[in-house]
Amino acid sequence: MIKLLMLLCALYFAAPGARADEGMWTLDNLPLKQLQERYNFTPAPEWLAKVRLASVRFNDGGSGAFVSPNGLVLTNHHVALGQLQKMSNEKKDYVKEGFFARRPMEEQPCPDLELNVLFSTQDVTARVLAAIDAKASDAVQNSQRKAEISRIEKESFDKTKLRSDVVELYNGGQYQLYRYQKYTDVRLVMAAEVQAAFYGGDYDNFVFPRHDLDMAFFRVYEDGKPVKSPAYLKWSRGGAKDGELVFVSGHPGATDRLMTIKQLEHERDYDLPTRLKKFALRRAALNEYSARGPEPARRARNKIFGLENSCKAYTGELQGLDPKLMAAKKAEEEALRAAVAAKPELAFAAAAWDRLAAVQEKLVARFKDLQYRGASDSKLAGIAQNIVRYVAEVEKPNEKRYEEYRDSNLDSLRFQLFSPAPVYPDLEEHMLALDLKESLDQLVPGHPYVKTALGGKDPHARARELVSGTALADPEQRKKLVGGGRKAVSASTDPMIVWARTLDPLYRELRKWREDEIESVEALEGNKLTKARFAILGTSAYPDATFTLRLSYGKVAGYEEGTTRVPYKTTFHGLYDRAASFDNQPPFDISPLEASRKGDVDLTTPLDFVTTNDIIGGNSGSPIFNRDGEYVGLIFDGNIPGLVLRFAYTEERARAVAVHSSGILEGLRKVYRMYSLAEELTAP
Amino acid sequence: MIKLLMLLCALYFAAPGARADEGMWTLDNLPLKQLQERYNFTPAPEWLAKVRLASVRFNDGGSGAFVSPNGLVLTNHHVALGQLQKMSNEKKDYVKEGFFARRPMEEQPCPDLELNVLFSTQDVTARVLAAIDAKASDAVQNSQRKAEISRIEKESFDKTKLRSDVVELYNGGQYQLYRYQKYTDVRLVMAAEVQAAFYGGDYDNFVFPRHDLDMAFFRVYEDGKPVKSPAYLKWSRGGAKDGELVFVSGHPGATDRLMTIKQLEHERDYDLPTRLKKFALRRAALNEYSARGPEPARRARNKIFGLENSCKAYTGELQGLDPKLMAAKKAEEEALRAAVAAKPELAFAAAAWDRLAAVQEKLVARFKDLQYRGASDSKLAGIAQNIVRYVAEVEKPNEKRYEEYRDSNLDSLRFQLFSPAPVYPDLEEHMLALDLKESLDQLVPGHPYVKTALGGKDPHARARELVSGTALADPEQRKKLVGGGRKAVSASTDPMIVWARTLDPLYRELRKWREDEIESVEALEGNKLTKARFAILGTSAYPDATFTLRLSYGKVAGYEEGTTRVPYKTTFHGLYDRAASFDNQPPFDISPLEASRKGDVDLTTPLDFVTTNDIIGGNSGSPIFNRDGEYVGLIFDGNIPGLVLRFAYTEERARAVAVHSSGILEGLRKVYRMYSLAEELTAP
Repeated sequence: MIKLLMLLCALYFAAPGARADEGMWTLDNLPLKQLQERYNFTPAPEWLAKVRLASVRFNDGGSGAFVSPNGLVLTNHHVALGQLQKMSNEKKDYVKEGFFARRPMEEQPCPDLELNVLFSTQDVTARVLAAIDAKASDAVQNSQRKAEISRIEKESFDKTKLRSDVVELYNGGQYQLYRYQKYTDVRLVMAAEVQAAFYGGDYDNFVFPRHDLDMAFFRVYEDGKPVKSPAYLKWSRGGAKDGELVFVSGHPGATDRLMTIKQLEHERDYDLPTRLKKFALRRAALNEYSARGPEPARRARNKIFGLENSCKAYTGELQGLDPKLMAAKKAEEEALRAAVAAKPELAFAAAAWDRLAAVQEKLVARFKDLQYRGASDSKLAGIAQNIVRYVAEVEKPNEKRYEEYRDSNLDSLRFQLFSPAPVYPDLEEHMLALDLKESLDQLVPGHPYVKTALGGKDPHARARELVSGTALADPEQRKKLVGGGRKAVSASTDPMIVWARTLDPLYRELRKWREDEIESVEALEGNKLTKARFAILGTSAYPDATFTLRLSYGKVAGYEEGTTRVPYKTTFHGLYDRAASFDNQPPFDISPLEASRKGDVDLTTPLDFVTTNDIIGGNSGSPIFNRDGEYVGLIFDGNIPGLVLRFAYTEERARAVAVHSSGILEGLRKVYRMYSLAEELTAP
Repeated sequence: MIKLLMLLCALYFAAPGARADEGMWTLDNLPLKQLQERYNFTPAPEWLAKVRLASVRFNDGGSGAFVSPNGLVLTNHHVALGQLQKMSNEKKDYVKEGFFARRPMEEQPCPDLELNVLFSTQDVTARVLAAIDAKASDAVQNSQRKAEISRIEKESFDKTKLRSDVVELYNGGQYQLYRYQKYTDVRLVMAAEVQAAFYGGDYDNFVFPRHDLDMAFFRVYEDGKPVKSPAYLKWSRGGAKDGELVFVSGHPGATDRLMTIKQLEHERDYDLPTRLKKFALRRAALNEYSARGPEPARRARNKIFGLENSCKAYTGELQGLDPKLMAAKKAEEEALRAAVAAKPELAFAAAAWDRLAAVQEKLVARFKDLQYRGASDSKLAGIAQNIVRYVAEVEKPNEKRYEEYRDSNLDSLRFQLFSPAPVYPDLEEHMLALDLKESLDQLVPGHPYVKTALGGKDPHARARELVSGTALADPEQRKKLVGGGRKAVSASTDPMIVWARTLDPLYRELRKWREDEIESVEALEGNKLTKARFAILGTSAYPDATFTLRLSYGKVAGYEEGTTRVPYKTTFHGLYDRAASFDNQPPFDISPLEASRKGDVDLTTPLDFVTTNDIIGGNSGSPIFNRDGEYVGLIFDGNIPGLVLRFAYTEERARAVAVHSSGILEGLRKVYRMYSLAEELTAP
């Protein structure tokens, strides 16, 4: 599953000279020549405007699209999973049973889901660059850049009341002001049951052939009524066809196509192995917790899903960084360095590789410190840390704040912070203890983080004391503290707040060090490399992914695997075959609904399919549409050979995996009997 | 497909210390302790006698079993393919359309199919060894051994009139006289159409999941009536179940489990790459011929199938000889050498590795000569060479002849030589020209083979002259020449006979060189290694495969592939899924019969399945049966990870692939409506 599970790790450089179906393109800079030559297609301005307004960003890490004029949004079940989990309880389990609103009044509000639609973009590169004193130190230049960005965002927000983000593209080669329409009254319309949506579980995740109905429908409301969404993708009659040109719009989270060799080596030797180890530890802890009974299992389920998904994804990325890829990247880098060395006018970039390499060394030296900046697995600990920072930051001038506390972001932040979603103390305690124990095991004795976070206590005792003593499970308490500002937070004796207060200076020191010593150099030197690349390789390029709107193009296509061919699609026959072939044993058992309605289903209906589109985590829920702008499929995954796409595009075997539009319709009508929803989709 | 496509290449050593489900065991030396410990099963003598008498050897390279008391034999479609091809013509294509005898009188005689059933075995080791003078030269010892074997075979044949073969096991550690009941009146009862039997063609060959009904039924006749076959495998009601103990009886062709490192290197660096190159050349030539039209395509079809199958198999074997396997084999060999060096009583074996290595050097030196000993791709050229040798050999005392011309083999040989199967002059010419051209390209100018075979002519002209001038397409002409003996053959002016006569001395020189210089050393030194292995590792062992009856045990089991699981079986749903997923495009189109009868088929019926049994080429058509001796499946293939089984057993991912007995029955009843055949199988 390719939901965006981590926030952007690192953003580097642009990718000039894209080949084949490569590229996650911004809508203002599409590869029109390639599209025309390869597919005889040039998008009209109205086509592009519709794509932009029909594309929806799920702020918890996914994508989606309007599929009717009445605010109906289609995304993946696994993008909806967080909300489904929050809306479920011990008695009613929407994850397991699915959710089916058969009448408008049954559509159910989500606790804390924010959707964004890109309203406009504006190039603000000149203004940002003008604010930077090129003769100042790296750290000062970095601050100047950030301050100017925050001013632009605030001005825009104050003027338009639209969510306003300055997006850095091409590693600072370009700054764009993105304004979003923001929706927070979002209601659940339909979600498949998890066994149909995520058939085969972790085994089949990132695998093709695949047999998932990974779909969920929401409806956007404003003022208590469904919004009008005249820009929506019309349902295709036949759905995706073998070989046809298709597009994916969505919000790919992060790619690292232009990392230097040293940076790739850092990923391969430090970042990815460390993450995998951390995740394995968490998975074990959650399995232990789940074993306590059905209700703990229900509570931990979506966390386990997330961890298993990440483990598989990172394992794939790590495998992707094989000697072959590294050799190719090395050859590219050497060629670029030679070209830079040969051109006096590019001398400014000559030292960039070495300076970036030096940054990697610094990172390695503080690698362990950086792992422990706060507790990330406990929701309550996260809330406490957030509140402590919030009240301190908002006292500063807007442009001096951390990005996430700028005025333009506060609305969205409060929406999350005050969410009424349930908190489970036993799970909180279990995970906070894990966090604390891990820091104790990993850091040297007497390390400031250990001293402060544990306060000389046993991890389990410390976690119990903090979780049982805090009142933060109640959103009203959070509001009171935030409302009371720094004074209220300083005076608070809530043990979790006290704990977060004492840890805050450590966090701030590490963040400042990272910004001044690492980020600033990466931004400056990376930018030089980008300029050099543009000078040598030309300017037809797409920027690395930034969880902002992108369009990728490609074709529906199977591929070779071993000595045989993988077809471009599966059918319902394949689903029932796989279940029967495993004698219906979990996790390959057929869902009860799919089992009981089998006789109604046309088994040759396409279910899932694959395309060559260039996608990555964050594209989950993205629409696939054809040259007529018709909805033909729903992205929900990449295959394992596709995980290398974080570092390099290939269309040999890497594929985007999607639910076929005909499969969605067949499922709605025959399996779920959601006739009016099907009618809404196919209305002329 | 694992039909035996080459005769035994080389036989070495035995495999002591078998683990897990390893081993192709002779029926007189089963791993009873392992079977009891692992599966709580000890076969009764009657059980073993039934297995022996129910197992059928197809002398053109496959296996089969009696499945009714009335001489009904079940094997693979691809084992029957040679006969189907010979019985078809431009008007009636049984390969394409299948064959369905719905009444006894419609059962159709095969032109040249010989079946064998093992009647008895007798240990003749002492007698063979007594005939060898251990002080004589290697070559003389080799002749003595062969002469004694031929005497034993002749005596047995004269006495019993049963086909009598002395089989060398454990590389000469044991000699067994095998007596066979031989059947040559074999009639075709039913064969699936090739698109159902070999669904997915070369793409899906050696692949699992799989969707083949690779089955054909024959009936054995004697004196114009079906033979009684009281020892047959009763049809199982439910067929193979996940995890259950199952047995495979059949005739695995050749394994090389105990090759030395030098021998494995020779395979990896010379034998396999050379074969692959030769086969690629032939495939290209046949494709060219096929392109001439539908009838040429029909004529060449089974040859192309054979070549594609071999290419894939050898590619798999070559991949199997990877650094990991080589390292393991090397470690084993070094341990054995150290153990031999440490025991004075094993001094006799100390030089064996070096002497065997020296043999490999000699082989390399004459490697190209050995490739060109006669034309192998033209049937007529083969017949001519056979006739020339036949009349010369039969004049010698029995024990001095080449093995294949000993009295005990002459019946079977004549049955093949005088076969009325059709000969296609245009195909003959095309393939003979290829043979001749290849020798011209590969050998040095003036090489005796080139000079003699081409006679200074262009390959195409030479091939045309030989094929158009010969009368050997007529079996009567062959009988006349053989009947006339050496005199008639010497006097013959048939250009193909003249050509074969002039080439014969070259063939004889190479064969003598190989027997004296290579085979003799391999036999003697290999035997020493076997003795040393027995002394060190114990005597519970199975011999390398020799296309004689073996029993292997294992369990029905899926496996891990990449990050997911492959189920232990497929169902009819999977077949219809795969066809629909490829939009029914060849070679993944559904056969017309399977398409039109889809509505009748219970789609959840098991179709194919996999087991851990140790099998190899020659096991095609082998029955799989359970501990009650009931027929549960029909071996037809190994998966790609299973191709390494030629060199070493593994049950991690290597699997035998079979048609499920329930799939066979469903196919017979619902797809082919062969009700009386289905009734015969399931009669109580």
